[in-house]
Amino acid sequence: MLVADYILKFFYEKKVKDIFLLTGGAASFIVDAFSRQNKVKFTCVGHEQSSAMMADAYSRVGPNFSATLSSSGPGGQNLVTGIACSWFDSIPVMHITGNVNTYESIGAQKGTKGVRQVGFQETDVVSMVKPITKYAVKIRSSKEIIRELEKAYQIAISGRPGPVLIDIPMDIQRKKIILKDNKNKRKKLEKYKPGKIDIKKIDKLIYLINKSSRPVLLIGGGVRISNSVNVLDKILQKLKIPIVTTWSGADGVDHYNKNFVGTAGVYGTRPANFTIQNSDLLICLGTRLETRLTGGKPNTFAKNSKIIVVDIDKNELSKKRGINIDTAINMNLKSFLPIFNQKLKIKNDDKWNQWKKICKKWNTKYPIIDKKYYSQNQYVNPYVFLEKLSKYLKQNDIIVSATGAHLTWAMQALKLKKNQRMFSAFGNSPMGYALPASIGACIAKGKKKRIICLDGDGSLQINLQELQTINYYKLPIKLVLMNNDGYGIIKQFKELYLKTKSDLSWKGISNPNFEKLSKTYNLKYFIVTNNKNIDGNLKKFLSQKGAGFLEVKISPKQKILPKLTFGDSIENTYPYLSKKELKKNIIKT
Amino acid sequence: MLVADYILKFFYEKKVKDIFLLTGGAASFIVDAFSRQNKVKFTCVGHEQSSAMMADAYSRVGPNFSATLSSSGPGGQNLVTGIACSWFDSIPVMHITGNVNTYESIGAQKGTKGVRQVGFQETDVVSMVKPITKYAVKIRSSKEIIRELEKAYQIAISGRPGPVLIDIPMDIQRKKIILKDNKNKRKKLEKYKPGKIDIKKIDKLIYLINKSSRPVLLIGGGVRISNSVNVLDKILQKLKIPIVTTWSGADGVDHYNKNFVGTAGVYGTRPANFTIQNSDLLICLGTRLETRLTGGKPNTFAKNSKIIVVDIDKNELSKKRGINIDTAINMNLKSFLPIFNQKLKIKNDDKWNQWKKICKKWNTKYPIIDKKYYSQNQYVNPYVFLEKLSKYLKQNDIIVSATGAHLTWAMQALKLKKNQRMFSAFGNSPMGYALPASIGACIAKGKKKRIICLDGDGSLQINLQELQTINYYKLPIKLVLMNNDGYGIIKQFKELYLKTKSDLSWKGISNPNFEKLSKTYNLKYFIVTNNKNIDGNLKKFLSQKGAGFLEVKISPKQKILPKLTFGDSIENTYPYLSKKELKKNIIKT
Repeated sequence: MLVADYILKFFYEKKVKDIFLLTGGAASFIVDAFSRQNKVKFTCVGHEQSSAMMADAYSRVGPNFSATLSSSGPGGQNLVTGIACSWFDSIPVMHITGNVNTYESIGAQKGTKGVRQVGFQETDVVSMVKPITKYAVKIRSSKEIIRELEKAYQIAISGRPGPVLIDIPMDIQRKKIILKDNKNKRKKLEKYKPGKIDIKKIDKLIYLINKSSRPVLLIGGGVRISNSVNVLDKILQKLKIPIVTTWSGADGVDHYNKNFVGTAGVYGTRPANFTIQNSDLLICLGTRLETRLTGGKPNTFAKNSKIIVVDIDKNELSKKRGINIDTAINMNLKSFLPIFNQKLKIKNDDKWNQWKKICKKWNTKYPIIDKKYYSQNQYVNPYVFLEKLSKYLKQNDIIVSATGAHLTWAMQALKLKKNQRMFSAFGNSPMGYALPASIGACIAKGKKKRIICLDGDGSLQINLQELQTINYYKLPIKLVLMNNDGYGIIKQFKELYLKTKSDLSWKGISNPNFEKLSKTYNLKYFIVTNNKNIDGNLKKFLSQKGAGFLEVKISPKQKILPKLTFGDSIENTYPYLSKKELKKNIIKT
Repeated sequence: MLVADYILKFFYEKKVKDIFLLTGGAASFIVDAFSRQNKVKFTCVGHEQSSAMMADAYSRVGPNFSATLSSSGPGGQNLVTGIACSWFDSIPVMHITGNVNTYESIGAQKGTKGVRQVGFQETDVVSMVKPITKYAVKIRSSKEIIRELEKAYQIAISGRPGPVLIDIPMDIQRKKIILKDNKNKRKKLEKYKPGKIDIKKIDKLIYLINKSSRPVLLIGGGVRISNSVNVLDKILQKLKIPIVTTWSGADGVDHYNKNFVGTAGVYGTRPANFTIQNSDLLICLGTRLETRLTGGKPNTFAKNSKIIVVDIDKNELSKKRGINIDTAINMNLKSFLPIFNQKLKIKNDDKWNQWKKICKKWNTKYPIIDKKYYSQNQYVNPYVFLEKLSKYLKQNDIIVSATGAHLTWAMQALKLKKNQRMFSAFGNSPMGYALPASIGACIAKGKKKRIICLDGDGSLQINLQELQTINYYKLPIKLVLMNNDGYGIIKQFKELYLKTKSDLSWKGISNPNFEKLSKTYNLKYFIVTNNKNIDGNLKKFLSQKGAGFLEVKISPKQKILPKLTFGDSIENTYPYLSKKELKKNIIKT
């Protein structure tokens, strides 16, 4: 058995069933090993960047995680944006890169240390990805491979998960592996130690809940990452308090739960932001309380509230940035939630009825989808469109988005049903994520399940080549292109903050003809050009078999509303309410 | 004046007239500054990877060099493959990235050091690009900007050139700059010290030339990088000895010069490789003697020859790898060549006539374009096609290629005319370079000059989105797609070196319909399907105005011939000559 064969054997043992690859000289020996087994499958991609995003999305929808295989040089370099997606969002992915033969590496021979390159396409990819991986290592001998694969695997999945990279020179890939070699024995790696279970703090939290008048649950992405949705469900049956979420926490809870208020933050719904700002106890589960949640003035975030944060990463708990955290619980939600659920007893939840009524009223008074949006004549209103899309989607549907205005509208307006998934690479927030990530999710689901790919016109360009991957593998991906003809979110930023009102800085941004584009790739093309033809075409688009492309024509001037302006605190978002009206929404205590 | 304005002013002063950008929040303040001046222009791209490749190609065709502007996070991450192109090929490019506000950077506030990210889309791009830049720095205060820009600029262009990156937080971009501020004064940076002019070594070289029986000039990329083509031309009028080149040196010399033999190396022509292996003096100008030139057994490279190397980078001279360098001259060719030219006196060049006759005979006996290629019935033979393409191209035409089989065929078969340019990102060798690099070259030439973009079907996928850039800016780029339906060069590698003969590892690689694709982007489509219809369609394609797309149908089984097999020395390439015939081509001394 060669090292190349062992890598696939290892993947199979770890239940890594699908990997994403682009072949190349320095990866050839491992690609070749696929011909000698049939347990681990591979998907060919058009650009390595996509392979990393596919593996990332695959790991998100699971159950198990995924890996990539690339060649040296540009192969590894092309991965970085995808790796960063997994790094910032705590997603375990294993990346394998090939590299030049050991003896033609920099430093292997006398006098070669100072040069830029020795072997063909040699690159120090390990140093390049160090800032965005939990572990990155170059293999120096075939004797290291068993230990390093195991080590990288355990690091990727343990604690706060994340991506790892193993760089394997060609000569090592084709070496025989001696499984019995002593040095090869899998060392039991020191296991990740989760924060100690701190019963006292859990008791205190339960005490605070029972004492509080306006408690709020803030759900973060950690609930999904720790596979804790089911436990949370159980808790929500007992703990009937208003629920708000971050963007990555949005699909951790059923939006039809009657206590659900909305997604919060810079682009949060008014009701969700009011709920946080009026709370007296904010229970934060698996969220790093990042700037897009808190806004630019973290010290005004939930300022009248006791803030309790449960997070796996103690660094996130020490970060603070002016947020006054009352109790920091450094635990994996996987451990915390079952104990919390077991111990949780609510003494009197009737006392929260008034508080819940207020939150409900906000939802009625300040809906994201303003009534006047329906009567918009020209173009499609994205909020109206997304409300209808929500309506037609089914439980268990998976929605994948990239970044830009389309994501923001979606996070505001989509009403997620139980067990629906909706995600983007929230932390890294790259354009170009939606298309490859939809493919990754589709492969994870056996290529059979439809995936809703929600993309913007600017973003779609980035990994355009993967339309062919959809075409070739006949994947049932429904691409919804929210076309506002430019980078809408940046336009809005510019109008808000920049001096020059000239449009010069927008010259040069343009789109191809999307109908022709979709037909090039045999995607059935649909279009909605105004509010009136949404229903018919959307239904047709969703119900037809196989892949499809729906272009949604949105005004280039369409704004994201509401939106926090820099310097304001999150209850006071644009379009501004009158001082008087704003004041009415702040509960006097 | 804001820091953002100063950056553009600085570019203008340094004659950086065009930059390539993709806008984004953290770059917005600099993008906005374009509205307040009209001297520096920008080109919008579809993916930051392309912007770096465009700037790289722009700097190659010059006269001055170029820069990019990107946002934080994915913006900077997406640059890396393009930056690596400039790093390995010694091309000066300045990259400007925006980053999050200083106060929301990791480490700026207490307790934030251990987290993965604080500000939105924050990434430590400086650490990531350290291994592939000459200088990368994050600006800490507006007082640093003048000094750091100047420093980065000087580092980029001095000595062995290369890319630099300056990361500028948003708060600093919008700060006022005080030009008179003391700390802002441009420090005269210590200038790069070229290797001392070593007259003794130059004299020795001239002595060795006059003494030698079979001298050969090996031209590397350094001749172009140091703008020394004209001086070399003068030298070649005096020094009438056989000339061979590396790939990056190929366009440093007129292939119609009667002493030109061919490109050498792993994919070298037999005549060029015979010439090197039979030489008794090999004069190497601006080449790092890399593995694709020397093959896997460097100690057999020019083994009967005195090897003289002139290179700007002393590390490249100490690298050796078994090559027996007789005289290493550590000088910039810009300084070396004029002195060498001045001192060079040839005592008796008649004595080389016999040697030159032998080289000529090799060219007749072992042409790259075998006669039998012409009678190929099915598909287009790439060698025949490239011979014809060469014929129809004009002096001063610019040909840009990516990497893969198409590049290899081109480096073997193209016969470059005086002042033609032909380049790829040879050292990094990424797929996807040709398309953006053609755009960069076209912008450098005022958008008016036709550029021949030579690409492969696998490679074209990587930066496909830039077809829209051609479409939008109406660039006269002639895209020649050498379509062999797969990664031909990797297939050949696999067949040579890998055990498994199954084709499983090729399943999943596929192409879109290129005719539909080209029409989506309003590129006029042409096709050649066999040898017989090359001339007509190629002429039409080249002569029509504006952009065009020519698909050249090549057999998926088409090989690169000749090619060095691992373990052989470069005179003995596949298809193997009989031992007897090979022996005949080795001159007894």
